[in-house]
Amino acid sequence: MKIGGKHYRSIWSDKDDKSLIWIIDQRRLPFALELMALRTADDVCYAITSMAVRGAPLIGVTAAWGIALSAIEHSDKGDIKNRIESDALKIRETRPTAINLAWAVDKMMEVVNNHTESSYIVKYTRQAAIDLCEKEIECCRQTGLNGLALLEEISHRKKGERVNILTHCNAGWLATVDYGTALAPVYMAHDKGFDVHVWVDETRPRNQGARLTAYELGNHAVPYTLIADNTGGHLMQHGMVDIVLVGCDRATMNGDVANKIGTYLKALAAADNNVPFYSVFPVSSFDRSLENMWDIPVEERDPSEVSFIEGSGHRGTTIVRICPADAVVANYGFDVTPARLITGLITDRGICKPEKKAIENLLSKNNIWKES
Amino acid sequence: MKIGGKHYRSIWSDKDDKSLIWIIDQRRLPFALELMALRTADDVCYAITSMAVRGAPLIGVTAAWGIALSAIEHSDKGDIKNRIESDALKIRETRPTAINLAWAVDKMMEVVNNHTESSYIVKYTRQAAIDLCEKEIECCRQTGLNGLALLEEISHRKKGERVNILTHCNAGWLATVDYGTALAPVYMAHDKGFDVHVWVDETRPRNQGARLTAYELGNHAVPYTLIADNTGGHLMQHGMVDIVLVGCDRATMNGDVANKIGTYLKALAAADNNVPFYSVFPVSSFDRSLENMWDIPVEERDPSEVSFIEGSGHRGTTIVRICPADAVVANYGFDVTPARLITGLITDRGICKPEKKAIENLLSKNNIWKES
Repeated sequence: MKIGGKHYRSIWSDKDDKSLIWIIDQRRLPFALELMALRTADDVCYAITSMAVRGAPLIGVTAAWGIALSAIEHSDKGDIKNRIESDALKIRETRPTAINLAWAVDKMMEVVNNHTESSYIVKYTRQAAIDLCEKEIECCRQTGLNGLALLEEISHRKKGERVNILTHCNAGWLATVDYGTALAPVYMAHDKGFDVHVWVDETRPRNQGARLTAYELGNHAVPYTLIADNTGGHLMQHGMVDIVLVGCDRATMNGDVANKIGTYLKALAAADNNVPFYSVFPVSSFDRSLENMWDIPVEERDPSEVSFIEGSGHRGTTIVRICPADAVVANYGFDVTPARLITGLITDRGICKPEKKAIENLLSKNNIWKES
Repeated sequence: MKIGGKHYRSIWSDKDDKSLIWIIDQRRLPFALELMALRTADDVCYAITSMAVRGAPLIGVTAAWGIALSAIEHSDKGDIKNRIESDALKIRETRPTAINLAWAVDKMMEVVNNHTESSYIVKYTRQAAIDLCEKEIECCRQTGLNGLALLEEISHRKKGERVNILTHCNAGWLATVDYGTALAPVYMAHDKGFDVHVWVDETRPRNQGARLTAYELGNHAVPYTLIADNTGGHLMQHGMVDIVLVGCDRATMNGDVANKIGTYLKALAAADNNVPFYSVFPVSSFDRSLENMWDIPVEERDPSEVSFIEGSGHRGTTIVRICPADAVVANYGFDVTPARLITGLITDRGICKPEKKAIENLLSKNNIWKES
């Protein structure tokens, strides 16, 4: 998607230097557009842990590049496989909640284990990372098309009147490689000329809505209104929301969805006001080993993310403390929305009900990942 | 209650100068403790509009002092009553949602209209403001005692194990004159030696939780944990909340409660997880003319409250922008929680169900306001 008229992806390989990956440092947005260079698996771990990259799909792709970089880094050493395996362990542990992370690392390790010679491992891990990246984009495009049909339907029902979408956190192209998940249908509807408008939850504590979703939508000229996270219930009570579209960090086989903390509260409000609530994600976010939503690990993050906030002041980007200096603070990263509150799951392979049978059926379909 | 070991109220009359009222400028907390002097009805309007004072009960008391100050200001003019009436109109319009504001002004205007001579109007409005202030405190004390019984019950049921209370916004002594509403039972339970702990919603956009509730509780040594507003649902899903206690800006005769935006979302989560949810307020917050919750006016406030945030930086208190410079922003101040989601209403006259009959019965009881 575009920033200032120029097309960007959220991650790309340098066109001259194969051992160099570029990412947009998302911690600096919307105040500055800065790139970060990744050359080693450690760089990748840092980028994920520090949230320079975030969003389950993008984390997965970044992790994949981490394995490819690890292969290059260790290509002249005897025990390349052990060294990559050790990097893989580190990468896998950078964030606990996103399933895509472990999934991408596993996929890459299969490639590593299919070869013995260093040069092949380097070559094929690079190719695998490129493939994974391209398929991630195609996956978002497919997901977007599936969601687009829903938005078109609402628009027709409203006789072309503005369709109001509420979203939480950032599930846009910055959370993926391009298009996004929850925002992909919105971009597509907008590009097709439908009148869409997005209520953007600021998404405390890290403010991905205020910082990234607002930035993305603004740069693509999609009408949006930024709101405090507390606002969605009131809007839904007053008929000001036609549909809720959120992303997903990990979904159980029963259709429960772990997503950014606060998603559950919006799902409750949607159910209470008969507003359709959809979670939008690539099928790679399904954790096939999980049936019980209570088994999803929920990340506790640094309390300073709640007590300090970064913003643009008259002396540039500044961090301020927004509570008493000695405040005790807790910072849970995710919550789990039970399937019973979810209208449907929009994926790259179609839309399905959040039910085991429907999900299994969806997963059994041919898909872009299996073609290769 | 205490700040740094010294007892404070949130508003008081200067002990030497009768035409001078002091308030704590709550916009400066928790970064600085600064007092603001009020000498005229205009000062009072500014204090309320700018939110130097906030919280329905404190707004009511401040408004009452506004009438008393107006009387002093206009005491040597011929048309004192008209002038006070004109000030009363201005004061009444400072904030639309809190019922206590109009109620206090009405009560004061009765006193004005009961007298003809300027000196009597000055004398008796002062006396009425003092009375209203003292009764507000007594009211909070009674409310606290009624809520205390509930907390004691939970503590006994948990065999003395820590009682976890979740609260939204600030309904502590800073929102009233002393004790508070939702926090009054908590202070009392703590002072009686019960092990209580408060989950404090930061309460975007104005962060009254992070700034005021955390400050209050910390200064009184009540254990608390500050959380992002998005967190409460997750905590309730995991049995980490025993009871939700929130304030109230205006209640209908059917028991619906208008309170700080986001309250409705917490009520939904409480209902979904069988956590008791109580709104705590003086009966003056009942709007006897209101039966339909949709008739409660909801204030839209300045968008800059969402897009800018104030905090403590290394160069002192600083305001930073936390979204793109051109972001479109909406800022709704309140939402309405329907009675069906509320377990009970804790008032100065007892606890009752959020039902018309029960509320009418409660209101018919003898009470401290009628004694005089």
